Amino acid sequence: MAASTLSPPEVPMELHAHNRDKLVRALRDHLAASSRPTRGFVLLQGGEEQTRYCTDHAELFRQESYFAYLFGVREPGFFGAIDVASGKSFLFVPRLPADYAVWLGEIKPLSFFKERYMVDLVFYVDELVLVLHDHSNEPGKPLLFLLYGLNTDSNNFSKPAAIEDMNKFDTDLSTLHPILTECRVIKSKMELDLIQYANDVSSEAHIEVMRRIRSGMKEYQLESIFLHHIYMYGGCRHCSYTCICATGENSAVLHYGHAAAPNDRILEEGDMALFDMGAEYHFYGSDITCSFPVNGKFTKDQIVIYNAVLAAHNAVLQSMRPGVCWIDMHKLAEKTILESLKNEGIVIGDIDKMMERRLGAVFMPHGLGHFLGIDTHDPGGYAQGLERPKEPGLKALRTIRELKESMVITVEPGCYFIDAMLVPAMEDAVTSKFLNKKEIEKYKKFGGVRIESDVVVTADGCKNLTNCPRETWEIEAVMAGAPWPLDHARFKSQNGSSGA
Amino acid sequence: MAASTLSPPEVPMELHAHNRDKLVRALRDHLAASSRPTRGFVLLQGGEEQTRYCTDHAELFRQESYFAYLFGVREPGFFGAIDVASGKSFLFVPRLPADYAVWLGEIKPLSFFKERYMVDLVFYVDELVLVLHDHSNEPGKPLLFLLYGLNTDSNNFSKPAAIEDMNKFDTDLSTLHPILTECRVIKSKMELDLIQYANDVSSEAHIEVMRRIRSGMKEYQLESIFLHHIYMYGGCRHCSYTCICATGENSAVLHYGHAAAPNDRILEEGDMALFDMGAEYHFYGSDITCSFPVNGKFTKDQIVIYNAVLAAHNAVLQSMRPGVCWIDMHKLAEKTILESLKNEGIVIGDIDKMMERRLGAVFMPHGLGHFLGIDTHDPGGYAQGLERPKEPGLKALRTIRELKESMVITVEPGCYFIDAMLVPAMEDAVTSKFLNKKEIEKYKKFGGVRIESDVVVTADGCKNLTNCPRETWEIEAVMAGAPWPLDHARFKSQNGSSGA
Repeated sequence: MAASTLSPPEVPMELHAHNRDKLVRALRDHLAASSRPTRGFVLLQGGEEQTRYCTDHAELFRQESYFAYLFGVREPGFFGAIDVASGKSFLFVPRLPADYAVWLGEIKPLSFFKERYMVDLVFYVDELVLVLHDHSNEPGKPLLFLLYGLNTDSNNFSKPAAIEDMNKFDTDLSTLHPILTECRVIKSKMELDLIQYANDVSSEAHIEVMRRIRSGMKEYQLESIFLHHIYMYGGCRHCSYTCICATGENSAVLHYGHAAAPNDRILEEGDMALFDMGAEYHFYGSDITCSFPVNGKFTKDQIVIYNAVLAAHNAVLQSMRPGVCWIDMHKLAEKTILESLKNEGIVIGDIDKMMERRLGAVFMPHGLGHFLGIDTHDPGGYAQGLERPKEPGLKALRTIRELKESMVITVEPGCYFIDAMLVPAMEDAVTSKFLNKKEIEKYKKFGGVRIESDVVVTADGCKNLTNCPRETWEIEAVMAGAPWPLDHARFKSQNGSSGA
Repeated sequence: MAASTLSPPEVPMELHAHNRDKLVRALRDHLAASSRPTRGFVLLQGGEEQTRYCTDHAELFRQESYFAYLFGVREPGFFGAIDVASGKSFLFVPRLPADYAVWLGEIKPLSFFKERYMVDLVFYVDELVLVLHDHSNEPGKPLLFLLYGLNTDSNNFSKPAAIEDMNKFDTDLSTLHPILTECRVIKSKMELDLIQYANDVSSEAHIEVMRRIRSGMKEYQLESIFLHHIYMYGGCRHCSYTCICATGENSAVLHYGHAAAPNDRILEEGDMALFDMGAEYHFYGSDITCSFPVNGKFTKDQIVIYNAVLAAHNAVLQSMRPGVCWIDMHKLAEKTILESLKNEGIVIGDIDKMMERRLGAVFMPHGLGHFLGIDTHDPGGYAQGLERPKEPGLKALRTIRELKESMVITVEPGCYFIDAMLVPAMEDAVTSKFLNKKEIEKYKKFGGVRIESDVVVTADGCKNLTNCPRETWEIEAVMAGAPWPLDHARFKSQNGSSGA
């Protein structure tokens, strides 16, 4: 049974050693530039296992992302430190009670963690204060760089490491967060390899879903097929986010699939499916959306909207390169979609005026894409000094930055028919003029289309890490059972003939 | 493809109305018995969606269990109240921002929740104080019964509902928790139906795992098969707890499978598997363990330990009925296991003396079982006044209560060869005399066996809700592909012939 070609790779812990080196270099540069001495320890606290409300139900632990970035530790309860002057790395391991061995497994010696995580020194958490004092070469209190700063997607602040005896240290709460966040924005080769693997797993699982979808199934059954494929064959226990398995009108709900809208609709003949699902492997994620007809054959209306979005997706990929501003990419996607809609008579009038009036946001209320890494919405989208735009559509952008080599960003244009957007736009004196109500009425129950790929910026362009069928004829061929990638010699003649 | 005979049932919301009625009757009885007036509102706060650390990564929401018991609400952010005098029920719904409709789905009217959850009155959360004042028939401040009490498994306290303006109410923090907890201990017919369904789903999924297991696979691949089966065919998005997929020596780690021991061993020929996995359906759970040889054929040593545990499992089921004390069932299981081990020369000496010296706890350090319901470790095991024993083995019991009709409790005897238990026992002057070191040495890498069923106490005995192959020959037949339940006419002759 060749259900998969995947093989979960060994993860090189050099990846995290490299991340630490990068941080140390950046910190030293920053300190030198502001004429501060090269001293102090970076100190991060790893995540703790959580129980549910008052019960002893343990949630499956997933490491805090900054800690994962620097140390790659999968166990809860750790602290980690880096000596800025020497670059030496420290892990502090929780001292486990004797009955841990009975209930939760072997109590590993410190040497085990030293070797596994490739750090220089390992101690117990309860030795932290003493150890950092011992390893400080400065007179007076050692300096701790703690992680405190705003996550611009959640508007939450990261929680700095908390230890007793914090009064035995000097602390700096402002330096570390922007520098460490910026390190995460630019991916190393080893990081890119993991993101590529997560993409390989998810791409294959999306194709498995496309092949097995049938009307009469429930949306969550496709979620189950995806989850099974990524874990069984890809070794991915976690998803990057809760699966969005939207069909029919649900595909116009951007973040469908949560507990209050739990992928429980029965699929109907003629539905479009919008499946936004991504696997995570050793903390690094993927974020992929495929849109396709449940029955495997696009209708003419479905092709119109699908190809409008695909044209936007492809236009952005063709334009991405270092130096390009992400707002311009967002606008390019909007404009491409509006042009397609105009060709079909769905919108009417001058495209530039539509753009001025932010009409694109009526059909695509979300941003074009976001950084991707250890978090699905990877941090750093609004580096210090950048302000979030206020205009419709643009205000939803998770970054407005200029692209740099080795950024990984999602490209996810969409076109949706959302009552909560269309009704006010039709009531508005200005925007209503652009909208062909009669044509739009045809799409009332359509839902929406999103096409989302994970893309790395290269020296002179970009590379798409996602490998899913994207052309309508490719999708139809794969859903009919053709192997992916397609044998192009065989399928080339069909190019463009779909939907007939 | 008849992969399953399961069909996710509609859940009757009368179940929760019945739970509310039961609570109101119990509260009124309690108030009358203590000569207190029948007045006040029960007020519970439902759970909130959680994000991961500082990010906007939303964890899949699962309702807080007491709130789920009374209201059955799957959405986050609710409050619920019950008027003790009239029995009227209130739900308070969060007022959602307009852009919820774009991102998360249709904003449902209050009438939707009134109908779905079969409550008498529905308002917004921000109206709570006013509404409860309006509906209070008493002069002065209305009285609120808030939920505050100890969970005896986690040693955490439940968090009482928190509202602004709490000073506009009188509050009672002590009455509700023990009464509501006791309501949860005794299951209704509708609750039993859900627990039975969760058991049907999980039993079938365990059998699927048995059929597909092969040496060379990774433990987590069997977890994936289980998870897929319960979701794809059973409609179960949640498990009752993180899957324990232990093979070889890992089966001696009682709570294997967590993030630090993540089911990642490669299965070897000759391993025993101990798989402890349970599906949850509409909050109600299951908790089932199957132990079996990875290659489908028990060795002689494996049969010895397996049948020792099975004999204990069956002896308990034959003895359970109302009035029986759970400590006695635990001791019965221990004694049955020790007798089997003595027959094989693994332990030596007088069984009663072994029991006095708590030798059973060396081989079974955990309790025989626990209440099961909306929580895997359902509360109420130590009703007020009951004290946890201090002796080895007994101290791990999650309840020591006398059985009552319609309690649901797991029966999960086990026999493990755990270094952390055996080494001290062999060093102890008294317990070492009972242990045949040479025989025990043979089982050094064996791991352990656990057999766990979910059992409801009936008027005159008990009923096993779990339906998995338990006899060694049944397991071998099912693993070889025989349909379950077995055609007993065909398989009867093989009874006892296994392991040859």
